[in-house]
Amino acid sequence: MSKAEIAEFQLGPMNHVGVAVPDIENAIAFYRDVMGVIDISKPEVLAPQGVKYAFVNLPSGQVELIEPYGETSPILKFLERNPKGGQHHMCFEVEDIHDAKSVMETRGMRVLGEPRIGAHGTLVVFLHPGDAGGVLIELMESHKSCDGVDH
Amino acid sequence: MSKAEIAEFQLGPMNHVGVAVPDIENAIAFYRDVMGVIDISKPEVLAPQGVKYAFVNLPSGQVELIEPYGETSPILKFLERNPKGGQHHMCFEVEDIHDAKSVMETRGMRVLGEPRIGAHGTLVVFLHPGDAGGVLIELMESHKSCDGVDH
Repeated sequence: MSKAEIAEFQLGPMNHVGVAVPDIENAIAFYRDVMGVIDISKPEVLAPQGVKYAFVNLPSGQVELIEPYGETSPILKFLERNPKGGQHHMCFEVEDIHDAKSVMETRGMRVLGEPRIGAHGTLVVFLHPGDAGGVLIELMESHKSCDGVDH
Repeated sequence: MSKAEIAEFQLGPMNHVGVAVPDIENAIAFYRDVMGVIDISKPEVLAPQGVKYAFVNLPSGQVELIEPYGETSPILKFLERNPKGGQHHMCFEVEDIHDAKSVMETRGMRVLGEPRIGAHGTLVVFLHPGDAGGVLIELMESHKSCDGVDH
């Protein structure tokens, strides 16, 4: 990766905010019945990441509700500290996840692991919150159409 | 407010995610130089709410960086618990802040204080995180054009 390519790196749209919840069905009921959100997806399991998730879709913007799945779920620790739940991560889109990982590492960020498939079906990585103002940041490769162009 | 009006209440777009930071200039440099964000506003003070703030504008979505301002800033306590900073609140738009407050109270939510002017120049209220899955939720009246219609 050349210096010019690194300098050109731009962060894409905010894709979603991850909110950890102790009980996803209760959380869905809260966003539907109290907050007045109509479009909420059915919970699904993403076993490799140790989460059950559902998307709360606003007219623009999205909240990803995540409940721990399995005994080694990374969400369990978060809920020990925050038993009612809370904001867990922010997810931003990038054009190419491998380029983004390389740029982040060049800039001194700790990237947690290798790119893996996230809840939206594209590759994601997480950045160490200790390097990012205490915020767990997820980078997610944008969906690409068949012509290879981002949309 | 009639039962029909309450039933019709719908949450609007996610407006921004509030991120508390110990030093707003450092945070701006991080989002600009490391994360590759081009459009970041200059810090401004919102004295009544005890914050200095700046907006990190993504192609879609927005992060509001908030640094404590004054000795009674509500952000000070958050930073005591999270010295590096962290995700502080999620802000969603509503059509009418007084209607939204009334609907939230009818549905058993604790609304923190009366509507007041927020960083975007429209009225906002906050909901108690203890009633909202550990998340501090800000409701913000959408900007209206001169014809009184939301845009």
